[in-house]
Amino acid sequence: MPRLSAHFLPDLITEDALAGSTVVVIDVLRATTTLVHALAAGAREVVPCGTIDEARQAAARLADQKPLLGGERGGVRIEGFDLGNSPDEYRAEAVAGRTLVFTTSNGTRAMLRARQARRILLAAFVNRAAALAALAGEDSVDLLCAGTHGEVTGEDVLLAGALVEGLADRCPPESLNDQAWLARDAWRTAKQGPLADVLRLSRGGRNLLAEGFPHDIATAAQLDRFEVVPVLDWQRGTIRAGG
Amino acid sequence: MPRLSAHFLPDLITEDALAGSTVVVIDVLRATTTLVHALAAGAREVVPCGTIDEARQAAARLADQKPLLGGERGGVRIEGFDLGNSPDEYRAEAVAGRTLVFTTSNGTRAMLRARQARRILLAAFVNRAAALAALAGEDSVDLLCAGTHGEVTGEDVLLAGALVEGLADRCPPESLNDQAWLARDAWRTAKQGPLADVLRLSRGGRNLLAEGFPHDIATAAQLDRFEVVPVLDWQRGTIRAGG
Repeated sequence: MPRLSAHFLPDLITEDALAGSTVVVIDVLRATTTLVHALAAGAREVVPCGTIDEARQAAARLADQKPLLGGERGGVRIEGFDLGNSPDEYRAEAVAGRTLVFTTSNGTRAMLRARQARRILLAAFVNRAAALAALAGEDSVDLLCAGTHGEVTGEDVLLAGALVEGLADRCPPESLNDQAWLARDAWRTAKQGPLADVLRLSRGGRNLLAEGFPHDIATAAQLDRFEVVPVLDWQRGTIRAGG
Repeated sequence: MPRLSAHFLPDLITEDALAGSTVVVIDVLRATTTLVHALAAGAREVVPCGTIDEARQAAARLADQKPLLGGERGGVRIEGFDLGNSPDEYRAEAVAGRTLVFTTSNGTRAMLRARQARRILLAAFVNRAAALAALAGEDSVDLLCAGTHGEVTGEDVLLAGALVEGLADRCPPESLNDQAWLARDAWRTAKQGPLADVLRLSRGGRNLLAEGFPHDIATAAQLDRFEVVPVLDWQRGTIRAGG
């Protein structure tokens, strides 16, 4: 029987418990949305880093590839970095064929929690259908929400719920943990309204409005816009387009 | 403006963050359901204890009141205790006029997290409407789900969602944290089916079925059966009927 679990925060599950599973990392506002944009725009690969220092070191090590540095702290672009964390910055003109070194506040933390997973995919609303297709045939799936500084964020849980709903044909009720069916039930109510309105009310959305990025919310709410599914490989230390 | 927050587990909020607030402790399967039954059946007061040893010491200290010892570990009655944790055990014939000393695996832990709160109420589906009435006029409310051994349980989150829905007239969307509106949206979907069926699928419900207490699930699903709202006072160390 398949097993489908959701985890509303990285701290609600141990690294060991994710060993051998297929993990879908979710950070809708904005890391996973931005990385889908970047790979859809033709970025060659992304090197995820936990800290700003690690990112600068990785960029120095990869100097011959002329990598771009991207990411945020407190929502804004890091000093000396080429790009922030707005999906629209990652256009083909800027990133096609390039290696990116990337660090954000919450997304990387969730990716690190999945270090022992067998397979790691990144999902956002913008690649929901593609992520679902990439999960066909998987028997043990964990949906891992990044949250924001240790707090549950609605937008991540709702995407987890949309994925649970999309996998319903293959996953009987007994195969879900409580967080999986709670997320699905919340999504079934929330999807009756415009997604961007819901995201504006979420913790992550309110932060973005306060930080001056209202447009990123509308961008993140564009359901199924891209076919690309970022695949994270910790052995290589890179994220590449899969699907 | 009012503030209404839900917390899916005690570990998702600090004791300090609950200081001065009105906290509603929720452990549907079964501690808060059982305590509503006990007080509705005329128990004089309940002394909540974190450990079995503390419970035995409290019973010895209160020996002149001939207290009853109640509670569970691993779902079953504790050796030497008078009562387990099934709501139906707490009938008037057994508990009317009596002092109870009570300890359970998860419920007491959530109660302790609320130690610095201004006011602590206990809620279950069986006293949902009464709990809502008791919250009229409150400006800062935290709904604290007990969970099960550190895992989110659906039944607690759904009751939190039912309370959020019941307070909707007074609480605009901006006054809710993400967990509050996620719980409300999950409840709006889940309530379309029979509540007992949902509880049977939850983590807490599956545990009860495995432990041999199927009837307790049906009992816990009896919406608005009682008018009593248990009020916990940590200064006195007791739970008494309020409302």
